[in-house]
Amino acid sequence: MEKFEINILGCGSAKPSPFHNPSSTVVNFRDNLFMIDCGEGAQKEFQRRHLKFSRLNHIFLTHLHGDHVFGLPGLIGTMALSGLEGDLTIHTFEDGKKILSSIFDYFNRGLPIDVKFNVIKPEEAIVFENSSLQVRTVPLKHKIPAVGYVFEEKPRLRHINREMCDYHKVPLWEFNRIKTGADFIKPDGTVVSNKLLTFDPTPARSYAHISDTSYMADLAEKIKGVDLLFHETTYLNEDLDKARERGHSTAAQAAQVAFDAKAGRLLTGHYSSRYKDDRVFLEEAEKVFPNVILGNEGIKISI
Amino acid sequence: MEKFEINILGCGSAKPSPFHNPSSTVVNFRDNLFMIDCGEGAQKEFQRRHLKFSRLNHIFLTHLHGDHVFGLPGLIGTMALSGLEGDLTIHTFEDGKKILSSIFDYFNRGLPIDVKFNVIKPEEAIVFENSSLQVRTVPLKHKIPAVGYVFEEKPRLRHINREMCDYHKVPLWEFNRIKTGADFIKPDGTVVSNKLLTFDPTPARSYAHISDTSYMADLAEKIKGVDLLFHETTYLNEDLDKARERGHSTAAQAAQVAFDAKAGRLLTGHYSSRYKDDRVFLEEAEKVFPNVILGNEGIKISI
Repeated sequence: MEKFEINILGCGSAKPSPFHNPSSTVVNFRDNLFMIDCGEGAQKEFQRRHLKFSRLNHIFLTHLHGDHVFGLPGLIGTMALSGLEGDLTIHTFEDGKKILSSIFDYFNRGLPIDVKFNVIKPEEAIVFENSSLQVRTVPLKHKIPAVGYVFEEKPRLRHINREMCDYHKVPLWEFNRIKTGADFIKPDGTVVSNKLLTFDPTPARSYAHISDTSYMADLAEKIKGVDLLFHETTYLNEDLDKARERGHSTAAQAAQVAFDAKAGRLLTGHYSSRYKDDRVFLEEAEKVFPNVILGNEGIKISI
Repeated sequence: MEKFEINILGCGSAKPSPFHNPSSTVVNFRDNLFMIDCGEGAQKEFQRRHLKFSRLNHIFLTHLHGDHVFGLPGLIGTMALSGLEGDLTIHTFEDGKKILSSIFDYFNRGLPIDVKFNVIKPEEAIVFENSSLQVRTVPLKHKIPAVGYVFEEKPRLRHINREMCDYHKVPLWEFNRIKTGADFIKPDGTVVSNKLLTFDPTPARSYAHISDTSYMADLAEKIKGVDLLFHETTYLNEDLDKARERGHSTAAQAAQVAFDAKAGRLLTGHYSSRYKDDRVFLEEAEKVFPNVILGNEGIKISI
C-alpha cells in the first residue's frame, strides 16, 4: 500500500513543557510531505525523524497563534542553508500572509526558496488537490479564526481480475483503462462489463486534523468515516470550564467527535502542561471511544 | 563571592545540527539574568536549566540574523503564560525594534509583559548600567551590523582590616563608609588613612561576548584583561576562506584575540555544523592560547 503516514513533531500546547514541543505534524503521502503547523523546534524534530526537506512543498497553518507558527522562519532558513531551492507554499489566512511575509522579507531575504502563499478562509473549501490527494478545510471554533484540514486520498484504481481478463482475452495494454472502470469491447463487438473483469479498489483513505477548537457537535458530520482523526485534547473533563473559556476541547469531547464521526482511530494531542502524565488523556478518551492512540513526539502512524 | 555565571543555552550556528541549538547565552549576575541572543529553542533550554523567567528583564541582541532572534516571540509568550508581568527590555538596533515590535504586536498582543526597546547603534557605548554592573557594546565586523557586549562589574568595596580597625577604635557604624575608601577621623581629630584600615577589594570581574564577527585585530585592545571571553569559533583555520567570506572567525583567530587581550579564559561556540566533533575547536584554539573552555549547551561557568 502506498505510504500515508502521520508523523508527530510536537503535541504540546501554548505553554511548553519539558516533555512536549508546540504543535507540528507531518503527513507523508506517497513520499510527498505536507506539514500542518510549525511550532518552535519543528525543524529540529523534522531532522531528528529523518524526514527530507526536499520532499516538503506545502505547509498548512490551522490558525495564527504563536505555538503553531513560530518555527516557520527558522525552518525556511534551514531549508535554504541545506541547499534546497524552489517553491514552498504556505496555506494560511490573509492575516498570516501579511505578518509572515513581513518576517520572511526581513530575515529570509535573498534565500533561494520562493515562499508562496495560498490564502484560505475559515470556511469549507478544497485548498489543495493533485491526481491522488485532496485537502479540504473545515472551520473550527477557537478564540481566533481556525480551520481543520482533511486529507483525502482520491478514489483508487480497481484491481484486475486476472483470471477473467485472460478468459475474455483482454490484451495487456487495455489493463490501465480497465482499472479505471472501463468495459472491454471484444473484436466482435461484444461488450464485457467492467464488473466481470475487476475487483473493487482498495478503499481511499483519509486523515482529519482538528486543532485548535472548542467541542463542535456538528463537526462529526463533516468528517464522517475518517480513518484517522487527530482531535486536540488540551484538557480533561475535570477542567471543562477552562476548555470552554479558552476555546479548547477535553479528551472526552474529542472521543465523542470520533465516536459520532464513526472514525477508525482517534489520535490525541495538544496537551496542556498542567497534567503531569499524558496517559490521563488516553484513559478519559477510551471511556467514550475504544480506538485511541496516545500522541507523542516521534511516533508515526500508518493509515 | 556574588554570582557571576555564564549559562550556555545554544552554541550552534545558523544551520542547526542535532547536537546544538542556535545562539543564546544567559549571564547570571547576582541573581539577575541577562540574556544575550535568543535563537529558536532558547526558552526550552532556559527552563531545562532551571533558570527563572522572573529574574529576566534584559535581552541583548548582537545582530538580526534569525539564528539569534527566532526564539524571542515564543519566549515572551511563555513568560506571559507563566504568570510573569512587568517590563522586559530588548536592546537592539532600530531595525530590530521595527521588525520585532511588528511580530510582538501581532502574536503577543494583550500579554501582561511590556516589551520595551533600548535602541542601540553599532558603536562603542554603555547600554546598561546599575549600581553594580555596566554593559557596553563593541562594534563587530559581520555581514550585517553587529555588536559584542562587555559585562563589567563595578569596582567593589574595600575589605575591612578588622585588627587595625579595632586598634584605632573605629566604631562598627563607620565600617560601610570605610569600605568605600574614606579615612577615619578620631574624636581627637587625628586622621587615620583608609589604607591602614582596609585591604584592597576583590578585583571587579568582566565577561565579553563576541559573536558574530570576522577576526578583528583591534578588538583585543577594547576588551583588554577581560576575565572570560566568549569569542565565536564558527570555523577551523582549514576553512579560513569560508570564515572570511561569511563574516566569521576560526578557533585559532578567537584564541589570538584572547591571547592579545590577555584574557583569563576563552570560551568557544557558534560552531558550524560541518564539523562532527567539537573537540577540534578546542585543539585548534589551545595551540594559540592555553586556557580554553569548550562551550556546550548546559554548561555554566563561574567568573
